[in-house]
Amino acid sequence: MSGFTYKDAGVDLDLNQQAMAKLPPLMKRTHTPGVLDLPGGFAGLYRLLGDGTAYEDPVLVSGTDGVGTKIKVAMHADRYDTIGIDLVAMCANDCLCLGARPLFFLDYVAMHHDDPPLLAALVEGISEGCLQAGAALLGGETAIMSDLYTRGEFDLAGFCVGVVERSQLVDGSKITAGDRLVAIGSSGLHSNGYSLVRKVVFEAAGLSVDDPVAETGRTVGETLLEPTRIYAKPVNALLDEHRDAVHAMSHVTGGGLAENLERLLPENLGIRIETSTWTPPPVFGWLESLGPVPRDEMFRVFNMGLGYVLIVDAAAADAVRESVAKHGLEAWIVGEVVPGERAVELV
Amino acid sequence: MSGFTYKDAGVDLDLNQQAMAKLPPLMKRTHTPGVLDLPGGFAGLYRLLGDGTAYEDPVLVSGTDGVGTKIKVAMHADRYDTIGIDLVAMCANDCLCLGARPLFFLDYVAMHHDDPPLLAALVEGISEGCLQAGAALLGGETAIMSDLYTRGEFDLAGFCVGVVERSQLVDGSKITAGDRLVAIGSSGLHSNGYSLVRKVVFEAAGLSVDDPVAETGRTVGETLLEPTRIYAKPVNALLDEHRDAVHAMSHVTGGGLAENLERLLPENLGIRIETSTWTPPPVFGWLESLGPVPRDEMFRVFNMGLGYVLIVDAAAADAVRESVAKHGLEAWIVGEVVPGERAVELV
Repeated sequence: MSGFTYKDAGVDLDLNQQAMAKLPPLMKRTHTPGVLDLPGGFAGLYRLLGDGTAYEDPVLVSGTDGVGTKIKVAMHADRYDTIGIDLVAMCANDCLCLGARPLFFLDYVAMHHDDPPLLAALVEGISEGCLQAGAALLGGETAIMSDLYTRGEFDLAGFCVGVVERSQLVDGSKITAGDRLVAIGSSGLHSNGYSLVRKVVFEAAGLSVDDPVAETGRTVGETLLEPTRIYAKPVNALLDEHRDAVHAMSHVTGGGLAENLERLLPENLGIRIETSTWTPPPVFGWLESLGPVPRDEMFRVFNMGLGYVLIVDAAAADAVRESVAKHGLEAWIVGEVVPGERAVELV
Repeated sequence: MSGFTYKDAGVDLDLNQQAMAKLPPLMKRTHTPGVLDLPGGFAGLYRLLGDGTAYEDPVLVSGTDGVGTKIKVAMHADRYDTIGIDLVAMCANDCLCLGARPLFFLDYVAMHHDDPPLLAALVEGISEGCLQAGAALLGGETAIMSDLYTRGEFDLAGFCVGVVERSQLVDGSKITAGDRLVAIGSSGLHSNGYSLVRKVVFEAAGLSVDDPVAETGRTVGETLLEPTRIYAKPVNALLDEHRDAVHAMSHVTGGGLAENLERLLPENLGIRIETSTWTPPPVFGWLESLGPVPRDEMFRVFNMGLGYVLIVDAAAADAVRESVAKHGLEAWIVGEVVPGERAVELV
């Protein structure tokens, strides 16, 4: 047995060590002044006032989410370093909607067996997402469960905590008829609707991840794995300037524009969106014709190019749109708040 | 097709409605004065100073965890209303170790298909755990992923945030030779070591969840599903009285006493534990002889009856033990800190 090594047994210790050595720097680079380092600690520590910000009545805003079956596309494409961006985005964008500044993030990764290169790739994406969100990656849990996950499969859950002064909560209470909807362009499908996407693309059309998509100029895998945009920087910046004018914000996730905007509305108001005001990115047209998927189903399942919507005072709409544009993102005034019955009308 | 109903298709709408109607009260009953209710909100809101506590330099303490393969025992036993207690325990007990008071909790549940009765049972346990931890159940995510989870299987992840004044962090910096170890009795196996447990009990011994266990007077399923104890109330209470005397705390999880205490030690100190000072609950003796599992392996994998260990000033050890006893829990002085090489010796 002189020649038998761990490597023969499928365990490449060098590779494992290299992969594991990547993790601490991936966490460290996200750390903000609030992070308190404690060796051997059981939990992550964050000094709320560590960056010198003062609060009279700080409200902690927290959200949890996964990435849905977009994770299966990552598995098919064997590409794992961007799905973590989606994970952070799904949680951090939700916290943003209340006007909160993301503080920190934790992740839960469950997989079949210890797989340091896979873990390192996942955490690379999470770390990148945290940088984009301005959130410190404080910790996480890696659960190895060979009886629950099959080889090559895994799941991800994320948790984000942000903070906002209570008097500055963006809670929808100031929404009024005449308010404008300023929408920020999404990066593509984000992390919703992938059960339909996979049915259309892989089952019905029989495409594979390496096939080209003429409409996007990229492969199927690249098109579908485009990471969810994280809106922290443009939204934090515009809140600094225009907080009083921002009456509500919505992260456009499962349920599309209608469902995610409806939940913000009081009883006696509706929303009217003019779909001619923006052009959905090519990925949506591709899916729509590939299915084909009926237009209204497209709007019910996908963000259709609008990833984040702000309801703002009409007088500030142009300034808010321009503030977003300064961050290199497209933004459009896509509609307005109208008297009505708590419904979103797309015209 | 006049007779065809959703129920025929396997969807019992009445049952679903009954199950879903349970969720809001299960969250509500955990809500503390800090919780801010916002209809339609994208995230959970918690007013840090909502209960009137003041902080000079508040440190947010956060932990995330799952319940490992104990979840598979719940599936075998078809019993889902206690595994949520384990989930909260795994996260909240970790936060406690830093001296923090748990504030709120969020859960991530991933499953094959929408199953409201299963979800309601899981959330019932989570809600009970939150009550025991004094943490508000602020929100959660239910992910339906039929391509990742098989029918009847699911996974759980939890996330807890607590708070502690920075000057009152229990960070191990005051540990000194002569300090005593006060250990609080566990409720059983807690949520660690279940891969070994399942191998011993179901594979090697061929037992089923309904078989009786003479040593515990309960069935295999009941014995193995005993929920993890949540130490928030006794620990918060003893910190109120004895915080200066508490130098470090450890939640005894995977790796057992040695690994979980070692991480707290500075370079030049060790720990000596006298195993004659307490008697492990019968579940451990049963597993040890059923395997058989070598004694040192038992100590390496399981808590052996000590779920939470405090390292305290020698002069306060008796008072700390008595403070725990007032909450109806067993506690023992099981060892002490000794000069040495950052190792835990069991004698």
